Amino acid sequence: MAELTAAHDLVQNLAQDVVAGKRRALARAITLIESQKPSHRAQAQDLLSALPKDRQAVRIGLSGTPGVGKSTFIEAFGMFLADQGLKLAVLAVDPSSARTGGSILGDKTRMDRLSRHPGAYIRPSPSQSHLGGVGRRTREATMLCEAAGFDVVLIETVGVGQSETMVAGMTDLFLLLMAPAGGDELQGVKRGIMEMADLILVNKADGDLMPAATRTCADYAGALRMLRKRPRDPQDFPKAMMVSALAETGLQAAWDDMQTLIQWRRDTGVWDAIRADQALGWMQEEVQSGLRAALETHPQAGAVLAQVQGDVRAGTLAPSTAAHRVLQAFAAGGAEFSDTENSPDSR
Amino acid sequence: MAELTAAHDLVQNLAQDVVAGKRRALARAITLIESQKPSHRAQAQDLLSALPKDRQAVRIGLSGTPGVGKSTFIEAFGMFLADQGLKLAVLAVDPSSARTGGSILGDKTRMDRLSRHPGAYIRPSPSQSHLGGVGRRTREATMLCEAAGFDVVLIETVGVGQSETMVAGMTDLFLLLMAPAGGDELQGVKRGIMEMADLILVNKADGDLMPAATRTCADYAGALRMLRKRPRDPQDFPKAMMVSALAETGLQAAWDDMQTLIQWRRDTGVWDAIRADQALGWMQEEVQSGLRAALETHPQAGAVLAQVQGDVRAGTLAPSTAAHRVLQAFAAGGAEFSDTENSPDSR
Repeated sequence: MAELTAAHDLVQNLAQDVVAGKRRALARAITLIESQKPSHRAQAQDLLSALPKDRQAVRIGLSGTPGVGKSTFIEAFGMFLADQGLKLAVLAVDPSSARTGGSILGDKTRMDRLSRHPGAYIRPSPSQSHLGGVGRRTREATMLCEAAGFDVVLIETVGVGQSETMVAGMTDLFLLLMAPAGGDELQGVKRGIMEMADLILVNKADGDLMPAATRTCADYAGALRMLRKRPRDPQDFPKAMMVSALAETGLQAAWDDMQTLIQWRRDTGVWDAIRADQALGWMQEEVQSGLRAALETHPQAGAVLAQVQGDVRAGTLAPSTAAHRVLQAFAAGGAEFSDTENSPDSR
Repeated sequence: MAELTAAHDLVQNLAQDVVAGKRRALARAITLIESQKPSHRAQAQDLLSALPKDRQAVRIGLSGTPGVGKSTFIEAFGMFLADQGLKLAVLAVDPSSARTGGSILGDKTRMDRLSRHPGAYIRPSPSQSHLGGVGRRTREATMLCEAAGFDVVLIETVGVGQSETMVAGMTDLFLLLMAPAGGDELQGVKRGIMEMADLILVNKADGDLMPAATRTCADYAGALRMLRKRPRDPQDFPKAMMVSALAETGLQAAWDDMQTLIQWRRDTGVWDAIRADQALGWMQEEVQSGLRAALETHPQAGAVLAQVQGDVRAGTLAPSTAAHRVLQAFAAGGAEFSDTENSPDSR
């Protein structure tokens, strides 16, 4: 009991230090929410409950396949924001990094100048992450950064697979960074990802690539016009524009457009509606994953589940009959709910 | 007790009649599985358990937006199959029909010749359906048709929204029916849907539309080549080809290609693997929806859920904290599991 009280006090102090803007406290807090230990999860819950909820950063998702110049763009755009006196946090979502060893040099090395700027905070992406856990961790890290008083939280993702949908579901704006390309490659963009974008930024609009960038930007602008109008967009959005992270051009225009979009959404109530839906969706996801975990670790239901799976796969047992048996076993015994990380195979 | 036994006997008799190929029994059985009454759900479970599991039809999903000639194609293709002595069942997935009154004339009127063919069975789509329920009902109706000895079960969907993903997840082959079009419209196809297709059939390849159909087919063939190779495909698949439902041309070639694909998948074990994954996925979905229903109807958890939602939407309560409270309330009381239809807002 004394131990629990001590842990509680530590967490309250940590929350205060995070809110006071202390960087080391923020780093420790993110490490805590990244932990999968049940006792740490309980402390993480305490920590999140202790945070003020009245601070909002602009949450920006950034997607782009390898080679489009994401690191260079984040460095250039981040420096642009930081030089205006804005505080910027960069979080990375890279569920594949453990497998591919993607960011060998580490996130801070990739963004050397930005990492040394006092207004910026770059959180290296942890290794051995899986998508389910990444979602919760990134959302909680974003909450911590908001409580710590950051103006912008930029969440970077790798531009392949499901992570885009996840990041778009936890951000206010979604940017898609593209490279200049021939007309053929336009179709290579996942249409689903294009539909999520608020701004498509065609990078490398400099030097010899200028004509290709201009053409590519026009192609994307054309493609965007073919998409159905979303209720979350003002006139002229989503839009495509050119930037050069290298020459540091187009950054002001991009930021101006983001501001226009943000202001319109705030004025129309769309901003709050999106945030409310995202928060509710996150809660539902947590409930689902908690139920799934409870079922899988439930002695009777877990045993039935393991037992019926083979028959269902073999086609000798109707899936709905199998599900019925699993649910009955779960209802018969008392259910227990742990609060640990999602299991790796959870959706 | 006597009543339960009587109901049990009725269900066993119904199962026997379905297996014996009696059409009216099949119709009654489908009506039973469509019912949302808890007592009917229990009987439906009994019925499905009583069916033999050793009969397999080729399950074909067919998608296409309104205007591409879906009804005409199903009639022509269905007659082609039926004339070869194959028994064909047609099921329709149209979650929007209740809203739009889509099939005013009814499915049998749409496919007049086919509906009168003794080798064909057309099940009209029920009204007032929602996607969650549609999934379970269509899967169970497919099981009934397989047990009734049909060689092909064709599941028609409307070509918009989530229903394609659902149908692709319960079929062996997925056909996308398209109309001839200008180059611009190619991009109007949801890329996600194109990625699901095993065959893209460009319909109306007749008369004046022949040149446009040829061009469109080449466009889709080109687009398909740009997609990543799927492990479920032999050489040259997925492919695009031309048909004319009106002139009844291309049907043999399309069926030959389907046979090639089926044979390859059977030989390589891909066929069984896909079916096994689909069955397991269905079971997991049923478990999830059962858990969700149990939570929502649980007195304490339901109350907590209703209570926290407002705070989560308003941003004053962390979603993970709210989820934790809901799960604790659910664990504290005993959980009850009903086996009724998914709730309308279930995913």
